[in-house]
Amino acid sequence: MAKDKSTSLGITKREEDYARWYLDIVDKAKLAEDSGVRGCMIIRPEGFAIWENMKATLDRMFKETGHRNAYFPLFIPVNYFAKEAEHVSGFAKECAVVTHHRLKTTESGDITVDPEAELGEPLVVRPTSETIIWSAYRKWIQSYRDLPLLINQWANICRWEMRTRPFLRTAEFLWQEGHTAHITAEEAEAEARQMLGIYKTFVEDYLAIPVFDGQKTENEKFPGAEHTYTIETMTQDKRAIQVGTSHNLGTTFAKAFDVTYLSAEGTQKYPYATSWGITTRMIGTLIMVHSDDKGFVCPPRIAPLQVIGVPIFRKAGEKEQVLARFGELEAEFKANGDFSFQIDSRENLSPGFKFNDSELKGIPLRLEMGPRDLKNNNAVLVRRDTGEKIIVSQAELAAKIPELLAEIHQNLFAKAKAFQAENTHQVATYEEFKTSIEENSGFYLVYFAGTPEDEEKIQDETKATGRCIPLTQSEEEGTCFYTGKATKQRVLFARAY
Amino acid sequence: MAKDKSTSLGITKREEDYARWYLDIVDKAKLAEDSGVRGCMIIRPEGFAIWENMKATLDRMFKETGHRNAYFPLFIPVNYFAKEAEHVSGFAKECAVVTHHRLKTTESGDITVDPEAELGEPLVVRPTSETIIWSAYRKWIQSYRDLPLLINQWANICRWEMRTRPFLRTAEFLWQEGHTAHITAEEAEAEARQMLGIYKTFVEDYLAIPVFDGQKTENEKFPGAEHTYTIETMTQDKRAIQVGTSHNLGTTFAKAFDVTYLSAEGTQKYPYATSWGITTRMIGTLIMVHSDDKGFVCPPRIAPLQVIGVPIFRKAGEKEQVLARFGELEAEFKANGDFSFQIDSRENLSPGFKFNDSELKGIPLRLEMGPRDLKNNNAVLVRRDTGEKIIVSQAELAAKIPELLAEIHQNLFAKAKAFQAENTHQVATYEEFKTSIEENSGFYLVYFAGTPEDEEKIQDETKATGRCIPLTQSEEEGTCFYTGKATKQRVLFARAY
Repeated sequence: MAKDKSTSLGITKREEDYARWYLDIVDKAKLAEDSGVRGCMIIRPEGFAIWENMKATLDRMFKETGHRNAYFPLFIPVNYFAKEAEHVSGFAKECAVVTHHRLKTTESGDITVDPEAELGEPLVVRPTSETIIWSAYRKWIQSYRDLPLLINQWANICRWEMRTRPFLRTAEFLWQEGHTAHITAEEAEAEARQMLGIYKTFVEDYLAIPVFDGQKTENEKFPGAEHTYTIETMTQDKRAIQVGTSHNLGTTFAKAFDVTYLSAEGTQKYPYATSWGITTRMIGTLIMVHSDDKGFVCPPRIAPLQVIGVPIFRKAGEKEQVLARFGELEAEFKANGDFSFQIDSRENLSPGFKFNDSELKGIPLRLEMGPRDLKNNNAVLVRRDTGEKIIVSQAELAAKIPELLAEIHQNLFAKAKAFQAENTHQVATYEEFKTSIEENSGFYLVYFAGTPEDEEKIQDETKATGRCIPLTQSEEEGTCFYTGKATKQRVLFARAY
Repeated sequence: MAKDKSTSLGITKREEDYARWYLDIVDKAKLAEDSGVRGCMIIRPEGFAIWENMKATLDRMFKETGHRNAYFPLFIPVNYFAKEAEHVSGFAKECAVVTHHRLKTTESGDITVDPEAELGEPLVVRPTSETIIWSAYRKWIQSYRDLPLLINQWANICRWEMRTRPFLRTAEFLWQEGHTAHITAEEAEAEARQMLGIYKTFVEDYLAIPVFDGQKTENEKFPGAEHTYTIETMTQDKRAIQVGTSHNLGTTFAKAFDVTYLSAEGTQKYPYATSWGITTRMIGTLIMVHSDDKGFVCPPRIAPLQVIGVPIFRKAGEKEQVLARFGELEAEFKANGDFSFQIDSRENLSPGFKFNDSELKGIPLRLEMGPRDLKNNNAVLVRRDTGEKIIVSQAELAAKIPELLAEIHQNLFAKAKAFQAENTHQVATYEEFKTSIEENSGFYLVYFAGTPEDEEKIQDETKATGRCIPLTQSEEEGTCFYTGKATKQRVLFARAY
C-alpha cells in the first residue's frame, strides 16, 4: 500500500508518516501485534523481554525503598467506585463490565451467555485499584504501628479506549501500581515525590530518556488526588508523552473507605495516601524517542540482547574457523558476565540480511567477524545508534564492548536531550504560541496563571494541554501568556499522545 | 467460636478441624485474605513473596530449557471457544463474561451498567489461553523454521468456582501457562514429559514436597488433550492434591485454529502442541503438606525470610550490647550472601511473643541471643521444623546456619515422604478399598483395568478418583481391583482436593 514511502526493510520513513512508521517498528521488530480482540494487543517475546527487564529493575528499586508486593482482585464491585465521587466519574465510565458467570450451548449448537447466570452486582475489570486496595486497608491499618504501609502491585489493567495504538493506548495493559499509607501529610508528599524521583532515575538511567518532572495542573490531575506528579518526554514528532505519574491522594480514599487508625496519642485518625504507576506504555515511548528509519533502537541498559555476533564466511573451511573463534569469544564474554551476547548462527541467511535484521531489532552493538578479520587479529563492532564501524583487536574486544555500550547509552540520552531542548520554546503571547505550535509542534515553557477553564479553552483552540508545572522553576516573575497576569509559575504546554 | 479447639495462638488444631486449621494458617500467617469480591482472594505481602520466589525459580528453569515469555489478552471472544468442542464444554461454562463496556450514573445518582454499551460479542475472561494463543500461532507458525515454538505466559486466570478456598480454589488465581508447538508427535510428547519433570524437580527440591508423577486417566485428562501428565501429593488429612499438569495436545488446537506450516519437504502440515501450568495453588499445597498446629512451616529454599534474629535483654545496657552484636552478625551474613536474615527489632514486644510470631509465620530458623549467650560466646538456633534448640558458638554461626537450612529441607521432605508412604495402601478388592478409604482416607495404588464409566461409579460410591497412572510401573501382572481383569497397570486412587 505505502510501498513508495518505505525503506527497503518495509519501514515507512518518519518524515513521511510518523504514525505508520511507529506501527511498522512495532510490527517488524516483532514487539507486539494486534490480537483480534478489540483494543487488546499481544506482547510478543521480543517486546515482553523488554518489559521483564523494566520490571526487574523497577522492582529492585521499589524494594530498596521498603515496598513490598501484593496482589488484589481483578474484579471490583460497582458499588466500590460509587464511594468516591470524583474517582468514579474519572474511571468507572469506559470499562469492561462482567455481568454473567456462565455460558450455555443453545439447541442450535451456538454458545451464548446464560441469562440465568446474571450476577447480583456487576463487576468492573479494574481500571486502577485504589478502591479495592483501600477497602482492604480498612482491615490492615489499625494502629500507627501499621504505618507507613508501603505496597506495590504488578497487574493487568483495563480501560475501554475507543482509539487504540499498540503500547501507547490499549484496552488492556500491564503496569505496576504503588499504594501507600502514612501518618502525616508531609510523609505522603515525600513518598509521592520520592517515587517520581525513582521513575525519573529509572527512565533516564536505563531507558536513556530525558524527562521534565513536574506537577500536573488542576485540569490534568488524577481523579481524587491532592497533587499529581508526572514525568513527560518528547517524541520525535515533537509531542509530549507522559511516562509515569505519582499521586498525593491526601485522605480522600481513607475517608471514602472509612480507614482510620489509633494514633500514638490514642485518637482515631485518617492516614494519608499516595499511589503511583508506570505501564507498558514505556515500551511505546522507547520507540517514539529513540528509533529511526532502519528500525527499533533499544537503549543498551534495557536491551534483552546487547551484542549480536554475525559470522562472515564463504567457503566451508572459513565457516569452521570463524565459528570456532566466535565460540571462544562467547565463552569468554559469558564468563565475564559484563554484557549479553548471542551468535546469529541461522543457516542460509546472508551476512547482509543479518546486519539489517539486527538493526531492525534494535540490538545496540553488532560484532562482525570473518577470515580477513581473524587474519588481522581484528573484529568489527558496529553501533546501532550511529552506524559507526569500529575496528578492534581481538584482545581488546571484551574490554571495548562495555565501554561502547556505555557510550551508546550516553549518546542516545544526549541526542534525545538536545532534540528536546531545541524544540522547547519560550513564547510571550498566546498569538505567538498558536502560530508556533501549529507550525512546529514542540514544548512551550510559558508563564501561566490561568484558570482550569482557560486551560480548557487553550486545549480546544490549539489541542495543547498543560503537561506539567516543572518542579524546577526560576524565581523570575513574568507575564502569563494567556491572561497577561503577573506570575512566577511556568507551565509546560504541548500536544500530547 | 471454636476457642476450645484452638491453641494459644488462635490456630485450630489439625486433628480437631482440618479445614478450619488450614484457614487459620492462611489468616494468622497473613498469607491471604478474603477480598469481599465473590471467590476472589487478596494475596498479602507474606504470601506474595512466596509466589515471587516460586516464579523466579520456575522462570529460570523455563528459560534454561529455551522457553520465552509473552503476553496474550485477558479477554477471549466467545466464538474462539466454539472452535474446539471438547474444550468449550470443559472450560467455557462457569466463567466471567464481559457483556458491556460502560457504566452510567442514573438520575437518582446510582451507578449502573449502560444498556447502550452492550458488546456485539461477549468476551470471556480467560479460564486458560489455548484458544487465544493458537489463534495467534496461525500467524507465528509459517515454516518448519518457526518450530519448535516455546512460549510461556505468567497471568491471572478466572474460573467461576462455586465453592472456594484460599489458594486451593478461587475464582481468580495466578499461574503460568506454557504453550509450545513442534514438528513431530514425539517432540511434543518429550516436551510434555520434560515440563512435568521440571515441575517435579522444582516441587521436590524447592518446596520439599514429594510427588507421584503419572498420566491422568481418560476421565481426568484436560479437555482436548491426547495425554495429561500430573504430579500429585498427599495432604496431612491424607487426601490427594494436584500440584501441576502438563498436556500433550496432539494436533487438536492446530486443527481447530487452522494452523499449518510448510514442512522441509514442501508440504503443509499441522504442528503438535503441548501446554503446561502451575498455579498459586502451590502455596495452599505447601501449607497442607508441611504446616503444624503452631502455624505455617515454610521450606527454607522458598522462604522469603530464612532466619530471624530475636534479641533478648532486660536492662538498657544489655539492649545496646545485644543489638550491637546482632548488627555485626547482620553485616557479616549479608556480606556472605548465603541466606536471608532479619532482626525482629520491634519495640515493646516480649521475646516470647516474637518466638511465637516467628513460628506462626513459618520462618525456618530463629537466632536467639541475649547477654548470657554473649558472655558464653554462644547463640541459640531454633529449628521451626522440629523445635530443636541448638547452641552454637558465635564463630561457627555463619557456617552452621546454611547447614541447618539444608537439614531442615531434607527433614521436611523425608517426613512428608514417609507420611505419604505410610498412607499409601495396596488393596486387592473393591470391598477392601471402600472400607479402607472410608476409615483411613489415604492413597491406593491398585491394579485397575476399568473403563471411564467404572471410574465414575467408583467416584460416585467412594468420592475417590483416579489421580494418575504412575509413570514408574512394575512389570508384574495383577488383578483389577474393580473388574477382576488381568492387568499390569496400577492406578493411584484417592479422595482429592
